[in-house]
Formats: sequence, structure tokens, C-alpha cells
Amino acid sequence: MSEPSLPHAHLSKKTFQGNFFEDFELGDRLIHPTPRTITAGDVSLYTALTGSRFAIYCAETVAQQCGFEQAPIDNFLVFHIAFGKTVPDISLNAVANLGYAECQFLTPCFVGDTLSVESTVIGLKENSNGKTGIVYVHSVAKNQHDKVVVSWKRWVMVHKKVPSSPTGVDSLPDLARTVAITGEHIPSGLDFSHFNPQWTSSPYLLNDYQSGEWINHVDGMTINPSDHSLATRLYQNNAKVHFDAFAMQQERHKQPLVYGGHVMSICRALAHNGLANGLWLAAINGGSHTAPSFAGDTLYSVSQIIDLGNIEQRNDIGWLRVKTYGLKNVTAEQISQFIEEPKSLIDSQVLELDYTLLVPAKSDH
Amino acid sequence: MSEPSLPHAHLSKKTFQGNFFEDFELGDRLIHPTPRTITAGDVSLYTALTGSRFAIYCAETVAQQCGFEQAPIDNFLVFHIAFGKTVPDISLNAVANLGYAECQFLTPCFVGDTLSVESTVIGLKENSNGKTGIVYVHSVAKNQHDKVVVSWKRWVMVHKKVPSSPTGVDSLPDLARTVAITGEHIPSGLDFSHFNPQWTSSPYLLNDYQSGEWINHVDGMTINPSDHSLATRLYQNNAKVHFDAFAMQQERHKQPLVYGGHVMSICRALAHNGLANGLWLAAINGGSHTAPSFAGDTLYSVSQIIDLGNIEQRNDIGWLRVKTYGLKNVTAEQISQFIEEPKSLIDSQVLELDYTLLVPAKSDH
Amino acid sequence: MSEPSLPHAHLSKKTFQGNFFEDFELGDRLIHPTPRTITAGDVSLYTALTGSRFAIYCAETVAQQCGFEQAPIDNFLVFHIAFGKTVPDISLNAVANLGYAECQFLTPCFVGDTLSVESTVIGLKENSNGKTGIVYVHSVAKNQHDKVVVSWKRWVMVHKKVPSSPTGVDSLPDLARTVAITGEHIPSGLDFSHFNPQWTSSPYLLNDYQSGEWINHVDGMTINPSDHSLATRLYQNNAKVHFDAFAMQQERHKQPLVYGGHVMSICRALAHNGLANGLWLAAINGGSHTAPSFAGDTLYSVSQIIDLGNIEQRNDIGWLRVKTYGLKNVTAEQISQFIEEPKSLIDSQVLELDYTLLVPAKSDH
Repeated sequence: MSEPSLPHAHLSKKTFQGNFFEDFELGDRLIHPTPRTITAGDVSLYTALTGSRFAIYCAETVAQQCGFEQAPIDNFLVFHIAFGKTVPDISLNAVANLGYAECQFLTPCFVGDTLSVESTVIGLKENSNGKTGIVYVHSVAKNQHDKVVVSWKRWVMVHKKVPSSPTGVDSLPDLARTVAITGEHIPSGLDFSHFNPQWTSSPYLLNDYQSGEWINHVDGMTINPSDHSLATRLYQNNAKVHFDAFAMQQERHKQPLVYGGHVMSICRALAHNGLANGLWLAAINGGSHTAPSFAGDTLYSVSQIIDLGNIEQRNDIGWLRVKTYGLKNVTAEQISQFIEEPKSLIDSQVLELDYTLLVPAKSDH
Repeated sequence: MSEPSLPHAHLSKKTFQGNFFEDFELGDRLIHPTPRTITAGDVSLYTALTGSRFAIYCAETVAQQCGFEQAPIDNFLVFHIAFGKTVPDISLNAVANLGYAECQFLTPCFVGDTLSVESTVIGLKENSNGKTGIVYVHSVAKNQHDKVVVSWKRWVMVHKKVPSSPTGVDSLPDLARTVAITGEHIPSGLDFSHFNPQWTSSPYLLNDYQSGEWINHVDGMTINPSDHSLATRLYQNNAKVHFDAFAMQQERHKQPLVYGGHVMSICRALAHNGLANGLWLAAINGGSHTAPSFAGDTLYSVSQIIDLGNIEQRNDIGWLRVKTYGLKNVTAEQISQFIEEPKSLIDSQVLELDYTLLVPAKSDH
Repeated sequence: MSEPSLPHAHLSKKTFQGNFFEDFELGDRLIHPTPRTITAGDVSLYTALTGSRFAIYCAETVAQQCGFEQAPIDNFLVFHIAFGKTVPDISLNAVANLGYAECQFLTPCFVGDTLSVESTVIGLKENSNGKTGIVYVHSVAKNQHDKVVVSWKRWVMVHKKVPSSPTGVDSLPDLARTVAITGEHIPSGLDFSHFNPQWTSSPYLLNDYQSGEWINHVDGMTINPSDHSLATRLYQNNAKVHFDAFAMQQERHKQPLVYGGHVMSICRALAHNGLANGLWLAAINGGSHTAPSFAGDTLYSVSQIIDLGNIEQRNDIGWLRVKTYGLKNVTAEQISQFIEEPKSLIDSQVLELDYTLLVPAKSDH
């Protein structure tokens, strides 16, 4: 995408235009505005916007039989709200969200919890064109009890304020390729000992999956113009590229871009068919939005099981590492072709998401 | 509609493709996945999606003066959520929803209640073309206290897995033409003794209506693309025909179909103008979606009073049996013409819904 | 807009067609139907529909540090719900909403509060064409404890039932040009003594603003078809012009009009960038929808500080009178031009809103 055209006159000094590459320094700590309380309204909207049906978030009865006092909030919703908080400071002038790593969910959220988010700059690399640079941040969302809810790293390509003066900045952080799942990733209270497959209609438990196995989630979901903008506003993510159709007519894609997190959530919701027992999102190991999505696109998803394992001292719960791909506007034949040769649909692939789910390891029903 | 084209290769065995006609046997009991807690978020979304304004659901103060401890959930919303649960097992491969009968609301729902739904196969009839068959089910939604909230029967035309092998199945259930309203249809606590017409702005009580009377509800409501897909996802109804615009381009109508229940709710909301005191949905006697609706259609509704009556030992409440017709994209002249000759607009008629409302029989204001 | 074409036959006497100019008499008191309880679902939808990020409404933690027991409801949301109640009786046959005055917020609202609304006719003026007249009403919304939440005056142009018979009615009310802010406009408990700029990321307090200062809020927001109709139905505002695309094809603009209040809320949300500490809406001094908005329009906003001041015996809070202009489908250059010469973009200007915000006067951080 070319540089956004910003108003050049009469800008009040009180208006914030977002940070540019030169505004970030290694070690900078940014406290993001607008702490946010999560409500039952957010949960219903998330269901309406994505069609998600993972049982533990949908029913108080199921949540209680899984050891929670009340239904927890879907960690994808938690992530989008937390992520949205970082946008005004980190990615308002982003050219692209390049990647995610080490996203870990450490405390479950419930209706009424309030998230406060801050980020630390952990890496900076100027691009050789002198026009842009890559900013790496480590972001942390805490709840009202100061407990870390979710911690993640991401890197974005950001415009430079003065494109013609290279600064030579080049400092890359070490990033883990996967989050090693341990007991700390099991939310307090979670217990799948009494898991009942009738909740989900899926009999498949941890050891029914195999590394390398592909799942075609079959169903498709069309993104309507309001869907993605409602979702993105709900998360209070104010990146300009999602909302201003008039200005976007002048940009490369001639229209607003769908927030990549909405694509994640749609693909996750479609993955219910085949992964219904992948109930708890423990970590996002990595992710990339390989092509943009627009209103009117229809999304499909396929997943490959990458790995799975047990957790020490727990025989009720295991983890499943999954790579889910989002494909847009493809036929059933093309989806089959993708599974045979995953690099074959590069123009239609909109998402590659590597994440780890907690799954019941046994059923007493 | 022609048969949906399903992916034919690489289908994981863990992905559920829905049941086909041969998968159902008389007496089968299906426990539907994903119990669902109803929240304040669902209620607000229902208002935003339909514009419904029936007073008893909108205000705690009104609900309390009607004998409830808190505002009850609109039974149309309850029905759609309960219905949505049955879709993955019953109608994922449905060609058409053919009809409803004996839908009775037996326990009121409140914010926080959790619905669990199951169905029994009560009838099966193979069509003479050997390609499809009709499945009759009796579905029951219970709350977390194991009380029946809503019980209904419906029949759907479902694809056969193997179109060429007729099985000769032909077993039809007995279905009542109407639900006889008794005390069990009055929700616990409901008392219209202190009904105040200022709540609804309508002075019309039970005996102000007459059998045969027609009401033109006058107003129109256009269905936008996001409206119906948001509603259908909120109900976790995952029937493919509502969501996948890309695949639907290959089907007869070239576009997604609006969930028939959304049409019901829009027509019910429009019927507020003339039936504002028809506060409580006690039963749906029958219903059919006489033509499909699409995004962009504008709906209008007219109703005819079929019958009305009192309920033993209650002088505060009576029942009104109403037939509401949904018409799309019609002029005021055409609506008037329809009332004179109801079969005259067959291409524009999208709904015929026969239902029974509880109505205040007197006012102490 | 020409007169709406109403069905002329078979109209049930139970259907309400709205009031015409001749139906109003000076001093008439109208008790509007459907009291409405505000819920957490309404709050989430308001966020999703507008992208509003004013901190005091978003987080329980912030609200509590500002002296509230829980997060209050945004007064713009309160206003739209209260306003919606008046539509069936006042403006169903309105040609145009001409203006607002003396809108004062006197009691804060919280989740669970129920609004009941009534209006008094305070002025009537027949237009010289004999076809329409202007109705002035004073509307008051009270909560379940009978406390006035919001009180406002507005005037609308309404069709006459019989266009050919002038009645000579001409009685105009006195309307104040501004609401003088006093202690009664500070909601009970509100205390900005511990205001922390980290909540909002804006360091600008009361005395950082100057009369005459212009703020270009920079960002744009496109209105999608579902956005405005969802919002308007949420507020249970049933004015025909917003919902019936089929009938509107025959009218001057060939399409539904966006509810002016949705335009207000979008402009207010955009104004967060530059006015993030204008946390509490105390009054709307006046407002006019200078041109209609339609689905697809992209809104921008600019504000001018009109005046500011302190409140007796309070050193933590002051007031800021702001005029916010909504502009549609304009370039950055045109926005700059508008600030230099505010009357230069008359066709693109959709809103002029004069309102007063409560702002922290000091920070202890």
C-alpha cells in the first residue's frame, strides 16, 4: 500500500497522527489508552460477528462442568480487544502487520474484567529503501487485579516521518518459534475430567489426532461490509485502513481492508467443524496475513495438526498445535488442491495461523 | 435449489457433513451440541436486528408490573436460538424447511438461562424422485433446571446420500393444526391485571379484536446483507445457504438465502403497529416460508385475526390466534389488494405464520 | 421530500399512522410508549456501531476512579434511546428534524436503568404553503426512580393531514441559545481530582483549550448500510425514512436516510482524536442536520472551541463548549479549506452540533 495521504494544513497540535518509525526507541514503554471492561454484550457480538460455537464459551452449564465459576471469554475476543488498544500507539501508520510470536494466554477473562495494555519496544530495523522500518513490540494486557491475561510480540512495518534520511537502526529481538505449553497455560480451575462429547457433538479427543493430519473445515463464510467494521470498532481498533472507504479509494486496493484479526476469528469459527473439542486457546505461536481480505470475500479454512502432547501431572488435558490456513473465494476442488500442495494458492491464501489449543484427553461419558 | 456441491477429496473423517435422508431412523434421538446461555447481549442484538418494541421485553419496570421478577426473553428469540441448535444435525443438507407445527412455549426464559436441545425423529417419507426425502422431528429445548422451555415439530426436505436407490420409507406423524391454549401456556407469574395501555400506546385489548379482522401493519423494513447473517450467526444456525455467497453463486438463486426465522421476526416486529398488546407468544400453530427472501428485499406484513378466546379461571388474560403474512417489495396498493384476495401475490409472499398471542383482557388504567 | 404515499384502503383502525400537524395542540402532553431498560448489550453495540472510545464509559476501573460506582452510560446513547421513544408520536410524519435546544443531562444512567419518556407541545407554527407546520416539543426522560435523566426541546416539520386548509396557528416558544452549566450538570459522584492522562493518552486539560481554536479530527468513518439501520433499530426509532428502501426509491433521495443521531455519534467518536478528555456530555445547546447522509458516505469531523469555564466550588472540573461539524466525502484539502472558511462546503456539511463537555481541570499524575 502506498503512504496514506494525511491532511497537511490546520492540524491542531492536540490531534495525534500516530507514531512514525523515528518516534520509537528501543526499550520505550508505551501505556496504551482506554482500559476496557469486557461485557456480556461483547460476547454476544462476537458470536454474531463470527458464528463461533465453541461450547465452553457458550454455556454457563458447560463452563461450570469444566471447572469455571462462569463462562470464560473466548481468548480470540480477548486478544482482539487487547490488540486494539495497541493500535493508536503502534500501528496507526503501519504499512502492514508482518507477524506475531509468543502469544500466551495466562489468566482467563470473565464478564466484568477490565483490561489495561502496555507495550515495550524490543526491536527496530530500518528498511533499505529509507522509507519504512520494522518495529517489534512486546505487549502485555493485565486485568484489574494486575494479573497478566495475555502477552504477545508482534512486528509491523511503519512509515518513516522523513523518508530520505536513513538512520542505520538494526536491532532484532530473539523470538521463539513456538510457545512450550506448561501448567501455567492451563487456566485456573480448568478441568476436563468430566468432559462430555454431547456438548460439542465431536467424539475426537487429544489422541484421536495425529501430527501431519489435514482437516478440511468445508464450510464457507462471506464477510459483509458491516461485519468487519463492526468487529473492528468493537475492539476499538482505529487503524484508518479499515474504516475510511473514501480515502481508501486513492490507495492501492481502492477499498477498506478487513482487520486481519477478523479473518483469524472467522477461520477459527469455521474450524469448529473438525476441531470442536479444541476448546481453549493457550497460545498463538505465529501468524501472518498473507494477502488482504475485503468485504464480499468468502473465507474457507483448512488446518493441519503440527504436533500434540500431554501436560505434566494432568491426564485430563493435552495440547494440540494446529496450523490453520484461510483461503478466499475458492472452489472445493481448489481446497483439495491446497491440501495436496499448500503453496499452490498463494493469491487466495489470506491467513496462516499457528496456534496451540487445550483439548480434553479423556471423556467419562 | 440444486444439490450443494460438496468437496469430494481430502475430507477429514473428523469433519461432519450433516445428516442425509438415509441417516435418520424413526425414533432416533439426537442430542444437539452447544448448550447456549442467553445474555443481555443477545437481547440488545435482537432489538437492533429486528427493531422489535413489544413492551414486556424492553423494560424491567413493565415486566415487573406484569408479574415477572425481571424482563423475560422474547419467545421468538428463544425459538431462533433453540432452532439453531437443531440445524447441524437436522437441516445442514436441507433443500427446504417445509413447515412447523405444535410449537408451544412452556417456561419463560430470562437472562442467564441455558438452553439444551434435543430432537426425536417422528416421521420419514421418501420422495418419489428418489433424490430427497422428508424428515419430521419433534424438538425440545430445556433450561438448566430441566424444564421444557419450548417444544415444536418441523419437517424438512433433505437430500439423499445415494439418490438412485429408493427405500420406500413412508411414515407420517399426526400433527395438530393448532395448539389449544390452556393455563400451562401462561408463564409462571404472568398477570395482566395491572396492564397499562401507556406502556404500548395501544388501547386495544382482547375483546377489541374480531375473528376475520385484517390489520395492515403499514411499515416496511429492508433487510441489509449484514442484518440477516448477524442474526443467523447469533442463533448459531450454521446452514450453509445463509453464509457462503461464493458457493451460492452456483446455485439457483445465485446468492445467500435469508434465514426464514429472521423473516418471521421482522414481520412480528412490523406487526407491533396494530398488535402492540399481543405481548406474549404462546404458540406457533404452523408456518411456511412461501418464497425465499434475499438481502435487499423490503418486507411488509399484514395479519388476520383467526380466533380469540378466554382462559379458564383468568379474567386478565386471553388468547388471540393470528395469521401474519410477510410480503416483499410491494406497493401500498398491492398490500391492499392482498388483503382483498390473499392468494393474489404469490410471488411476493414470503411468510405465512399462524401463531397465538396472550393479550391483556382488561386494563385498570 | 414529497409526502409519503400511504396505503389508502383496508387500513385497520388499530394501526397508528402517526400524528399530523393538526393533531397537535399547544400544551398537549404525550406519554410515549415502550419504557426501555438500558443493558450491557446496548453499550457494546454502541461501541461497535460508532467506535467510540471515551474512557469513562469503557472501563469500570476508570469510572470508579472518577467517583462512579460503575461505568456510566454514554449520554449520546442515552439521548438516542430517549429520542427514539418520541418518534412514533412526534416525528413519524416528519418532513425534517429542524433543530434541538436546551438539551440537559441531569442524572447519569447505568446498566439496568429504565427510561420512560414524555413530551409537551410548546409551540406550533403553520407554514405559509399550507402543507406543513412546525411542532415544538419539550421532551423529558425519567429513570425508574422518577429522576429526570435528560430534558430537551426540538422542533420538526410535520405534514398536515389536509394540506389545503390553513389554520393560522403561530405560537413560538422561547428557546435559550445555550445551557448555562452549573453544579446540577455534574453527575452525582463525578470527581476528576484523580484524573490520569494515561487513561486517554491525552494530556490536554480544560485550560489547555482556547476559545476559537479549531481541531481537525483527521480520521474518517464510512457508514455501511447495516450500521445505521442497526443503530436506529437499537434506539427503537421507527421513522419510516430510515428503514424502507423500497418505498424510499419513490422519494427525492431514492434511498433511506441515515438517522441524524447516528451522524452525531460518529462525529463525536471521531472527535476523540483531539478531545479525548471531553469525557462527559453535559448539554447539547443546539444542532442541525444541514444535509442528509446515506449509506456509503464517509464522515469526517472538525471542531471549534466556542467557550470554556469553571464551575463554582469545583477545581477538578470545568466545561468546554464545542461546535463540531460533520463533513462527508471530502479530501484533506477540503477539510483544511472548511476550517479557513466554514461556509465553503455547504453541500458536504451534514452536521453542526453545539454542545458542552465536562473536562478535567487538573491532573494529579
